[in-house]
Amino acid sequence: MTDPHLIAVDWGTTSLRAYLLGPPGTVLDAREAPRGIMRDDRFAAVLDGATVGWPTAELPTIASGMIGSLQGWVRAPYVPCPASVDDLARALTPLPDGRGHIVPGLTSPADPPDVMRGEETQIVGALALRPALAASSCLLLPGTHAKWARVADGRVVDFRTFMTGELFAVLRDHSILGRPARDTAAVASDDAFALGVRAAQEGSEGLAPLLFTARTHVLAGRVEAAASLDFLSGLLVGDELRSGLAAFGVPDALVGDPALCARYAAALAILGHAPAPVVDHAAPAGLWRIAERAHIIPA
Amino acid sequence: MTDPHLIAVDWGTTSLRAYLLGPPGTVLDAREAPRGIMRDDRFAAVLDGATVGWPTAELPTIASGMIGSLQGWVRAPYVPCPASVDDLARALTPLPDGRGHIVPGLTSPADPPDVMRGEETQIVGALALRPALAASSCLLLPGTHAKWARVADGRVVDFRTFMTGELFAVLRDHSILGRPARDTAAVASDDAFALGVRAAQEGSEGLAPLLFTARTHVLAGRVEAAASLDFLSGLLVGDELRSGLAAFGVPDALVGDPALCARYAAALAILGHAPAPVVDHAAPAGLWRIAERAHIIPA
Repeated sequence: MTDPHLIAVDWGTTSLRAYLLGPPGTVLDAREAPRGIMRDDRFAAVLDGATVGWPTAELPTIASGMIGSLQGWVRAPYVPCPASVDDLARALTPLPDGRGHIVPGLTSPADPPDVMRGEETQIVGALALRPALAASSCLLLPGTHAKWARVADGRVVDFRTFMTGELFAVLRDHSILGRPARDTAAVASDDAFALGVRAAQEGSEGLAPLLFTARTHVLAGRVEAAASLDFLSGLLVGDELRSGLAAFGVPDALVGDPALCARYAAALAILGHAPAPVVDHAAPAGLWRIAERAHIIPA
Repeated sequence: MTDPHLIAVDWGTTSLRAYLLGPPGTVLDAREAPRGIMRDDRFAAVLDGATVGWPTAELPTIASGMIGSLQGWVRAPYVPCPASVDDLARALTPLPDGRGHIVPGLTSPADPPDVMRGEETQIVGALALRPALAASSCLLLPGTHAKWARVADGRVVDFRTFMTGELFAVLRDHSILGRPARDTAAVASDDAFALGVRAAQEGSEGLAPLLFTARTHVLAGRVEAAASLDFLSGLLVGDELRSGLAAFGVPDALVGDPALCARYAAALAILGHAPAPVVDHAAPAGLWRIAERAHIIPA
């Protein structure tokens, strides 16, 4: 086991993950806490709690994600695309009292610019873990606010946000489309998911006229109430893929939570696309790489 | 003032409207109660409460809407399109204890069929109030579940549901897109609405990549936080119009709540379409016409 060199924190809206890292980015210890910036704004205390028992006084700390937003601890201004790991490393924002540094987010070349915070670090990590992706690739990062990103010459050159995860959650929890499954014990159904993916692919008019079919399929007995959320998930993922594939092409890698990435991989397979590799643990790898380039730790 | 001949009830999920009608469909009295089928399932008591003081013992009662659904008082089976007022009148379902009749809903020719309950009666009413629409027209009924309907030879031949109203409500109340306005006193902004309508029209990829722009426009200072819901509303209405216009053509009339219809009329005007007339009070007119054709009241 290597010695710890860095405390790295992936600090989001609802939760944070803290990592104790040693060379060459090895995860020596990891902790998760449901104390994201919208859940607990006593940021110094949250960091202390997440790192208790670690040699915090001797090690540098680096954090990425919504902790650098206007609602976070210290605002880390966005860096515009195209942006390399060195551009990010040069733009770190210090935390108060020498507590560490925050990685900036990115803005896209769109008008108005799209934004990301946290995913830029996952992308850096994915390129560190899979160097072949750096020259030219399309990366898909599923999640609450899924990102499709284009990488060229080691730089993020463009990206776009799809609110697929959040849209699914609000429709599941608050709309009529979630009701059949709320009244039933939900059962995972690959068939219902596939039916939704294919319906979205055929729906040239986009999502608006498709959403209500998550109800009509249940009324017509085509989809069981217990499987209706899988159909809805298929519709939403399928619609994201229809749009993302047209704008960005087939992803060369899926970056993020393996279970969620597996769902996107299944949808891509349903549409006849080659399986893209899944890159997990990208956030600690990215934080390590940025800390190296910022000379916070020796390269 | 004419004598009352009919008690007509437009009975939905969240509220109901009861009308005391005389020839030729004149509204003599009207009441609204927040006791739709999902709010109060003591249906006989709700009807008694909504009609108290009216000569209920002497008059026939007819109701339309979700009261005829599986979750309602008595299930009134759907009638398939194409369907005329006579098809609806022949398919009334009796209420228990001779309390009256329920108008059936419609199913579309799609696979699986789309469904409506209540709007079929509004369409009958719109054709009664504006007979020129009966030969051939496209009707747009904005709402929680907006309907676009094609009418030919006095029959509803096809329709499609857009969940625009419900999607707006869940995103406003439960997603990050509603947050800026929740933290601010919302201010109505026609400019923000128009910006959203135009953005949706230019978004050839549909709604999925557009939704997050309701956030990026605020972050970039293009839309004030207080006006962000108008931008979102413009996006959603604009996306519905993009899809509906492609499938159904320009609406010949807007049917329903005048304030909501005015919003759609504004969006159509932004896109350069001629103003469509707004048909209000369509539900009581439709219930009267269906009761006539069912010989519940003299024609």
